[in-house]
Amino acid sequence: MFKGIYTPIVTPFDADEKINYDYMKHNLEKWGQTDLDGIVVLGSNGEFVYLSKEEKLELVSFVKKNFNPQKKIIVGTACESTRETIELSKEMADRGADAVLLLPPNYFKGRMKEDILYKYYTDVADAISIPVMIYNMPGNTGINLSSGLIAKLSKHSNIVGIKDTSGNIVQISEIVRDTDEDFAVFAGNAGYLLPALAVGARGATLALANIMPEECCKLVSLFKEGKLDEARELQLKLIEINFAVTGRFGIPALKYALDLLGYKGGHPRRPLVPLPEENQKIIKELLIKYGVLNQ
Amino acid sequence: MFKGIYTPIVTPFDADEKINYDYMKHNLEKWGQTDLDGIVVLGSNGEFVYLSKEEKLELVSFVKKNFNPQKKIIVGTACESTRETIELSKEMADRGADAVLLLPPNYFKGRMKEDILYKYYTDVADAISIPVMIYNMPGNTGINLSSGLIAKLSKHSNIVGIKDTSGNIVQISEIVRDTDEDFAVFAGNAGYLLPALAVGARGATLALANIMPEECCKLVSLFKEGKLDEARELQLKLIEINFAVTGRFGIPALKYALDLLGYKGGHPRRPLVPLPEENQKIIKELLIKYGVLNQ
Amino acid sequence: MFKGIYTPIVTPFDADEKINYDYMKHNLEKWGQTDLDGIVVLGSNGEFVYLSKEEKLELVSFVKKNFNPQKKIIVGTACESTRETIELSKEMADRGADAVLLLPPNYFKGRMKEDILYKYYTDVADAISIPVMIYNMPGNTGINLSSGLIAKLSKHSNIVGIKDTSGNIVQISEIVRDTDEDFAVFAGNAGYLLPALAVGARGATLALANIMPEECCKLVSLFKEGKLDEARELQLKLIEINFAVTGRFGIPALKYALDLLGYKGGHPRRPLVPLPEENQKIIKELLIKYGVLNQ
Amino acid sequence: MFKGIYTPIVTPFDADEKINYDYMKHNLEKWGQTDLDGIVVLGSNGEFVYLSKEEKLELVSFVKKNFNPQKKIIVGTACESTRETIELSKEMADRGADAVLLLPPNYFKGRMKEDILYKYYTDVADAISIPVMIYNMPGNTGINLSSGLIAKLSKHSNIVGIKDTSGNIVQISEIVRDTDEDFAVFAGNAGYLLPALAVGARGATLALANIMPEECCKLVSLFKEGKLDEARELQLKLIEINFAVTGRFGIPALKYALDLLGYKGGHPRRPLVPLPEENQKIIKELLIKYGVLNQ
Repeated sequence: MFKGIYTPIVTPFDADEKINYDYMKHNLEKWGQTDLDGIVVLGSNGEFVYLSKEEKLELVSFVKKNFNPQKKIIVGTACESTRETIELSKEMADRGADAVLLLPPNYFKGRMKEDILYKYYTDVADAISIPVMIYNMPGNTGINLSSGLIAKLSKHSNIVGIKDTSGNIVQISEIVRDTDEDFAVFAGNAGYLLPALAVGARGATLALANIMPEECCKLVSLFKEGKLDEARELQLKLIEINFAVTGRFGIPALKYALDLLGYKGGHPRRPLVPLPEENQKIIKELLIKYGVLNQ
Repeated sequence: MFKGIYTPIVTPFDADEKINYDYMKHNLEKWGQTDLDGIVVLGSNGEFVYLSKEEKLELVSFVKKNFNPQKKIIVGTACESTRETIELSKEMADRGADAVLLLPPNYFKGRMKEDILYKYYTDVADAISIPVMIYNMPGNTGINLSSGLIAKLSKHSNIVGIKDTSGNIVQISEIVRDTDEDFAVFAGNAGYLLPALAVGARGATLALANIMPEECCKLVSLFKEGKLDEARELQLKLIEINFAVTGRFGIPALKYALDLLGYKGGHPRRPLVPLPEENQKIIKELLIKYGVLNQ
Repeated sequence: MFKGIYTPIVTPFDADEKINYDYMKHNLEKWGQTDLDGIVVLGSNGEFVYLSKEEKLELVSFVKKNFNPQKKIIVGTACESTRETIELSKEMADRGADAVLLLPPNYFKGRMKEDILYKYYTDVADAISIPVMIYNMPGNTGINLSSGLIAKLSKHSNIVGIKDTSGNIVQISEIVRDTDEDFAVFAGNAGYLLPALAVGARGATLALANIMPEECCKLVSLFKEGKLDEARELQLKLIEINFAVTGRFGIPALKYALDLLGYKGGHPRRPLVPLPEENQKIIKELLIKYGVLNQ
Repeated sequence: MFKGIYTPIVTPFDADEKINYDYMKHNLEKWGQTDLDGIVVLGSNGEFVYLSKEEKLELVSFVKKNFNPQKKIIVGTACESTRETIELSKEMADRGADAVLLLPPNYFKGRMKEDILYKYYTDVADAISIPVMIYNMPGNTGINLSSGLIAKLSKHSNIVGIKDTSGNIVQISEIVRDTDEDFAVFAGNAGYLLPALAVGARGATLALANIMPEECCKLVSLFKEGKLDEARELQLKLIEINFAVTGRFGIPALKYALDLLGYKGGHPRRPLVPLPEENQKIIKELLIKYGVLNQ
């Protein structure tokens, strides 16, 4: 069911930190015309941790109304408690989400043993009507979901895939090896899209696809057509820009790049701050260097 | 202003995960009769991450009404966004909190550079009417607040102290060295209460004080009276129980120990589960071994 | 110059911890008849840290005399000090080594900044007559050599490649991107051989190739022929056995597997101990499960 | 038997990297006149990893001949293999070492389980005639020796103490709690000397005591006399200089500080380099700031 390229869309704010729905609409229209298979709303890059519950609900309703109905909408609904996660997921199902993307609870890292995490995911999957995609993001959560746990969870009929942002290509391989073919193994970062495809990933959810959706989709099609040399060339080209708008500078850089490329990035919410000028220069030069932006 | 021993109180839930206010009242009365200088509501051990905003407000109102008015109430109000933190802190001030205890935002770990964190804390301290105590808890947040950052923040007139749960005794020493005498440096775990006092800490906020408030206060008074050998003996005695109800088994163990000792621990909220029977046995035996519980 | 599959050969000891040269000869003859491009002597799997300097010299002389002269011999010669590394490397060149494989000095981890490491590698490369291959092995050394450092070092005419055992596929991609085509980027572990080839690695040095040399070489040829599905199938098959004889159980398991497969593993040296019986069973079952060993 | 303050002495080299025995003699005479209880030769700060076996033997013979016979000499003899460690330790016993200080083998970090480490230490302790002091130095080795393992090892009649450089004050407390009174628990860094004494440490082995032996000894005597406020004041004063010559800049800074204070630091050996000028300035200013050096 889930395959291809998704992007975890940013949430553009005004300078006074309110959501700018005009910007959002503008972006949704543009993404809707690309080859993207869908979007993730309220993912990490959507600054979901900075939105109140009311804002989250309103935002997803807006996206549902304004995004290409041909494409899928996955919504990040993880809360720390099982009950809040279930409640929010149900409300998102009501608003038209095609699936939820679920980070593990992670504040009490020492307690999040595999049996606890297993129960969390199956409790939620049991309670809601739309499918669950697991979200492994150790860089932000401090918790890695092992391939063994994923294999076990993949047996649940309502758990349909995983976005793995661990960067651990052996772990991604193990997940492919140990799950059925219809379990959607997604790479979580454009830095290793080609290697993930090579070991059997079926798609990816990529921050980079906010600004370069067609290049990300192109890599997948090159790979499928067996044009491995071209795919590798494209992969090596994507790495530096991707790192700049994710690991190196993060969301403020991604928003700035969106502004440069015809989208509307808007402001981030505090404690995040807009990209400082000296880093703006770096982003601009990178986009020019790799031919994404004209001088 | 802030000194002595505080305990971050647990939030007792029923089996159906609702807050049990009868239990809460029972505990508040007992803690109110001890030598504790105050309590922290909605700290880590209060499972604050599992409560909705409405529950948090209701809970603090209840505590204010039912706790010994002689003693202080500090409330954990950190949210990921600056604006939500400010808003919640203001509402807690209205409900009678004496201070707020603030974790750093931590989901975007890679972005939380010192300038961002500095701005977060001063933005909140500027905006609210009650004092801010910083909460350094790298084990749960994945972020350590350096002694240099704390020294800088301590200059703000509305930032009055720090609870340091890093366990890094050199860092605690540096904070004592680099802050004024009226800045409250608090140990964040009973495992190193005596060493923290030895280097100049003025108090502590201790999960262990939920179940053994008098022993924790005793250690402070022994130290103050210069009875170092007795203080050391007590410190060594506290370590194993403390580790069992914090690092080793966590909140479910703390709640179980409360039940054994005349308090009402209640259930934890999911994904946490009640302490399994085999671990209950370990807790019971430890409490007996160290003379806290009669056989 | 360097490409294809190498294996870091084990050093078989007797029960009394002496090197068993009969076993060594037996193995060298077998490996010499495979498709391997060469071997690494005194690599991690050769237990180089447990051999005296005299033993190292004697061993390499023996290998040179007894290994297929068609194939290459790379020798691990890293010592903590620059001067000892140079001295040992020179002696190995005299004994016929084709290149040296150099771990970074790592005891004083805090001091090993990039300028220090750069100087270490170039000091050695300047002083010796045979080429240097860099060995990045953060799991054992606690130090990661960044892609930026490798790119800089690759400009030295006597530094010809890198074995990267970080498992970081993005880093490997960056090294391919930032070095010339004749710089040999080698994967350091069979767990990610296919992904490494996909992003442009030219070869690999694999512990697994001690026991399964032909399968490792086969993966490379399948990849080169564009048979990606078969390559992936083989890659997924190799992962579990590979993990068992490296990360999970290490050298004792590798030596036991050699014994099962017609080679002579011999004993490890203390503090390592022979593989315990219960783990022997696991290794045997894995080899049978994947068709490497007949029941 | 072992108590008080020891210093792990530096090994001064000439610009051409040879050991400078004149400098060594000069330093030994000065240290011999202080209140130090003894010295550690071939510790981390002695750059033991950069000395050949022959140099190590020669150096210890020289120290034995030239150091105050009233004071003790502990020698670092750890090698990666059990057999080399035993052999070197025996030779050091013959040269007059009072004890050996033993790091755990650590190259194969994944294999160094507690049973392996237990056997390593007891194998060595069984085989040699002088006592073993354990050396826990996770910062350099990547391995922490748990308090449980130390307690078990402390039962061996020839294992007499531990130098703990983990900085984990709870772990140090646990070791005090779980070992007999005649087991020498030593702090391994001056940053936490007072807290370690407060929880029951019997002494310390301190890099800082190379340059400030009397201040380190003074802290111990203040503590013993119950002058806790003065002890704390001194402790806080030592922290910044200590950090500069250990964690921040390391051995090159320690050698430079020796030069400033009437000792002979000499050069470090490559890959280490002499302290750069800009950092020399920092060290000088720190020594002046804290009154160790006159302007």
